Amino acid sequence: MTLVELSAAEAIEKIRDGEITSEELVQACLDRIEQVDGDIEAWAHLNPDFALEQARFRDKQRADGKALGPLHGIPVGVKDIFDSEGYPTENGTTLDSGRQPYMDCRVITLLLEAGAVLMGKTVTTELAVFGPGKTKNPHNPAHTPGGSSSGSAAAVASYMVPLAVGSQTNGSTIRPASFCGIVGFKPTHGLIPRTGVLCQSPPLDTIGTFARSIEDVALVTETLAAYDPGDSDTRPHARPPLAAVAMDEPPMEPVLAFSKTPVWDQADESTQDAFGELVDVLGDECSELFLPEAFNQVVEMHNNVMCADLAKNFAGYYERSKDDLTDRLCAMIEEGQKVTAVDYNRAMDLRAELNLELDALFENYDAIIVPATPGEAPAGLDATGSPIFNTLWTFCGTPAVSLPLMEGPNGLPLGVQLVGQRGDDARLLRTATWLTKRLA
Amino acid sequence: MTLVELSAAEAIEKIRDGEITSEELVQACLDRIEQVDGDIEAWAHLNPDFALEQARFRDKQRADGKALGPLHGIPVGVKDIFDSEGYPTENGTTLDSGRQPYMDCRVITLLLEAGAVLMGKTVTTELAVFGPGKTKNPHNPAHTPGGSSSGSAAAVASYMVPLAVGSQTNGSTIRPASFCGIVGFKPTHGLIPRTGVLCQSPPLDTIGTFARSIEDVALVTETLAAYDPGDSDTRPHARPPLAAVAMDEPPMEPVLAFSKTPVWDQADESTQDAFGELVDVLGDECSELFLPEAFNQVVEMHNNVMCADLAKNFAGYYERSKDDLTDRLCAMIEEGQKVTAVDYNRAMDLRAELNLELDALFENYDAIIVPATPGEAPAGLDATGSPIFNTLWTFCGTPAVSLPLMEGPNGLPLGVQLVGQRGDDARLLRTATWLTKRLA
Repeated sequence: MTLVELSAAEAIEKIRDGEITSEELVQACLDRIEQVDGDIEAWAHLNPDFALEQARFRDKQRADGKALGPLHGIPVGVKDIFDSEGYPTENGTTLDSGRQPYMDCRVITLLLEAGAVLMGKTVTTELAVFGPGKTKNPHNPAHTPGGSSSGSAAAVASYMVPLAVGSQTNGSTIRPASFCGIVGFKPTHGLIPRTGVLCQSPPLDTIGTFARSIEDVALVTETLAAYDPGDSDTRPHARPPLAAVAMDEPPMEPVLAFSKTPVWDQADESTQDAFGELVDVLGDECSELFLPEAFNQVVEMHNNVMCADLAKNFAGYYERSKDDLTDRLCAMIEEGQKVTAVDYNRAMDLRAELNLELDALFENYDAIIVPATPGEAPAGLDATGSPIFNTLWTFCGTPAVSLPLMEGPNGLPLGVQLVGQRGDDARLLRTATWLTKRLA
Repeated sequence: MTLVELSAAEAIEKIRDGEITSEELVQACLDRIEQVDGDIEAWAHLNPDFALEQARFRDKQRADGKALGPLHGIPVGVKDIFDSEGYPTENGTTLDSGRQPYMDCRVITLLLEAGAVLMGKTVTTELAVFGPGKTKNPHNPAHTPGGSSSGSAAAVASYMVPLAVGSQTNGSTIRPASFCGIVGFKPTHGLIPRTGVLCQSPPLDTIGTFARSIEDVALVTETLAAYDPGDSDTRPHARPPLAAVAMDEPPMEPVLAFSKTPVWDQADESTQDAFGELVDVLGDECSELFLPEAFNQVVEMHNNVMCADLAKNFAGYYERSKDDLTDRLCAMIEEGQKVTAVDYNRAMDLRAELNLELDALFENYDAIIVPATPGEAPAGLDATGSPIFNTLWTFCGTPAVSLPLMEGPNGLPLGVQLVGQRGDDARLLRTATWLTKRLA
């Protein structure tokens, strides 16, 4: 196994044990980038010297007998909407060309505290909405990698880094993970603080993580879970033991619920068939769940909230330079300007109601199983695919993980999405591990 | 001193010591009500037998050697927007005639846990907005008692109960306290949980307390401070020691800031003169503070938030029976239906900014001194007076207390309002005690 194929968990152990150095690992990843990124273009900002300098610093810390963090020496890619002191942060728009934050966001601070190496900044769509960046799907460069965390997913899928961080306001973590054939994890809304990250919509914006194994997403997500009074959606809870629990045997056999959700007719026929077969294979371990009617309103409500918040939070871009924004983003902003406060706050009330329903459902089920995307990555680079199978779970703030367990008719990856109970991210990841073994 | 003239703190001690019984105290209050309430009409629901039964139960608890709560045996009046199992809760509107909650709200639960006697429900304006109830000002029944917590303020001012609970979404605690000549306390937004209380506007709605002394408002407010996951604006903090700190000597001489606020021209000339004299009397202990320009937007922003939330939360009343609502409330609802989500959420952003400014100011000042109301209670019972001097502090969620230290040209009371730092309710009450002594 080459260095770039190591999981983060494996690499951490080898660095701890002195079998490899962080510098060797980072150099191997840089070589891999050199080799494959010409076709993929996953990086918005990458400085090999800066990455290697950090790696040597991590190696020196170890040599000096300093305490080692849980990600000591591991290179991580971070979406280019996360403010970074060591790299520009351009938010996927020419309007922020050359923008250089003077301070790291909270997530990067947490990564660095954990001993990670900030490898570089990964490509995002325009302001993390729909306008595609330059990144191609590593499995077929004529297909989209998904978005908005396009570069994060593609970089991990193509072995340029073992770990990456992105975000999701609609389907921006789960969708690219599904399209790129890796594990994407959107934890409970509020688990990871967003201070210093481009704000689209506070009730929806959620930090997500990417890796090639469940253990690795658990590891990096646990590192990022933190209370931050600067993000009023975080809570003063202890960090959940995600990495340990994710690899545990479940105390009893998990029970899954398969749900078509209100958007089933938007799944490709091949996806519908594949999930039919999956449910058959699972047999008694999975029953079909019919969500109450109130869930039918979510897509519209989510759209109201997201557009209204884009209208407010991107007003500066729009008012000063709307010609430099894509038409689709302008249309969303203009739609958002008209949303009433009553409708916005009704959406917030609906979310609270739906969460009561979901909390009750999760008394009986360990996870809900649904497609991660309507199908495999569509051909073309002028759009990033549909987030429609993610909208409900982003709106409700439930944790969701995409597992690379299926393949579409073109041989591209297709994710199985497992959704868990708010606040019980560890149980969801444990169930994901169980399912992966069950289907192996 | 008669029983009804006792402060809550005094009465609690006498009940503990066996000098008086709760039944004697409650009976004395009922006699007082019998004697004076015909002119004042502070009560929406009062059942002497139920109150006496509770009092006898409290006396039996003491006789049985049971633990005594911090309000053991003390009668409390509660505004008729707080759900109560023992009394109807009609929210000041005929549309809720005969409405009988099956459960006590959190505040009443906390009062009962503390050993209090729920004396009765006090008159509120229509849905706690502007439409006046039947209550008259105890100092002159031709004048308004203020609103919306009209009955709570009037009942305490006229010695019918030592303590009462109300609420404030604009000026509904501080205004009636000023007009009725008692101490009214609006603690930090989120200190007291609102679960089971009529919801007007979650970012603004704040529970307030009334008594005839600072010590007594501290005592009852401390009892009500609680974390409640059902009210997402409460925080898991320990209960602050308000009663002890409120009566402490300040560790150093307090420094006050007098602010005209952006609404100074709406104060009566006599009020402006009185505050000029007050500032002169305080001399070096008070300097004039000029609030940054951003504060000028508050009245409009508060109005947007409050009207939009009335439109959402009172939609049921409005849609089913708007002819039974006052014209003023209908106009506010109709205005609120048009507020955009962008404007609503901009107001929330402004609030966060202003609080940063205020937090910095409170590094240098212990409290800001401002009028509680534009002047003494206006004549007439068809309106409840202006909340304009309360809007800013409700919007920002800062604690505020009205102290009965002045008199208007008609000899009616006029409150001095002290405003403190969010979260430091204890320091505000201690400063209020200091100011009261300083001016005595």
